[in-house]
Amino acid sequence: MDYTKMCSKYESAAELLGKKWTGLIIRVMMGGPKRFKDIKEQIPDMSDKMLTDRMKELESHGIITRTVYPEMPVRIEYELTDKGRDLEGVTNSIQAWGEKWM
Amino acid sequence: MDYTKMCSKYESAAELLGKKWTGLIIRVMMGGPKRFKDIKEQIPDMSDKMLTDRMKELESHGIITRTVYPEMPVRIEYELTDKGRDLEGVTNSIQAWGEKWM
Repeated sequence: MDYTKMCSKYESAAELLGKKWTGLIIRVMMGGPKRFKDIKEQIPDMSDKMLTDRMKELESHGIITRTVYPEMPVRIEYELTDKGRDLEGVTNSIQAWGEKWM
Repeated sequence: MDYTKMCSKYESAAELLGKKWTGLIIRVMMGGPKRFKDIKEQIPDMSDKMLTDRMKELESHGIITRTVYPEMPVRIEYELTDKGRDLEGVTNSIQAWGEKWM
């Protein structure tokens, strides 16, 4: 990697992934399709509004999909796209570093 | 990895590394010892105060060292510690994902 100058793709990725709660949400989503409450369960300190905002943002970046199942009551599931699942290298490296140093 | 529950070490790592500018600063530092102005050069939109705060924070977490060389004028260099250099897996995976998807 060329460390002598900044890379705009790295910059964009770091800005998106570095937002508060986003790294935690992506880790939870690695476990497969989730409902809103499943995510909240693992990140209880995050407000509903914040989770809603983050999920919208991740959806707009093509990292998750939101599927509405027309049942009674309506069921909504979130799932990683290929682009989202491809973040496994990032979450794994953060986990490995965290286990060693935190 | 167990995705069914959150890991506090992952949480701490993601919180620290996810702070605004920190991911960019660490990428620059991967290039070897740096002076304040070398870092600013690659991240021109970041204010001096913000860089100072972030470097203090990274120093307090044992990720960088700050060395003062008693020359005229005084020279101050920042360098990654072993803990800091070990973040190469994280920066590499963000770079790889960014190149593919951003």
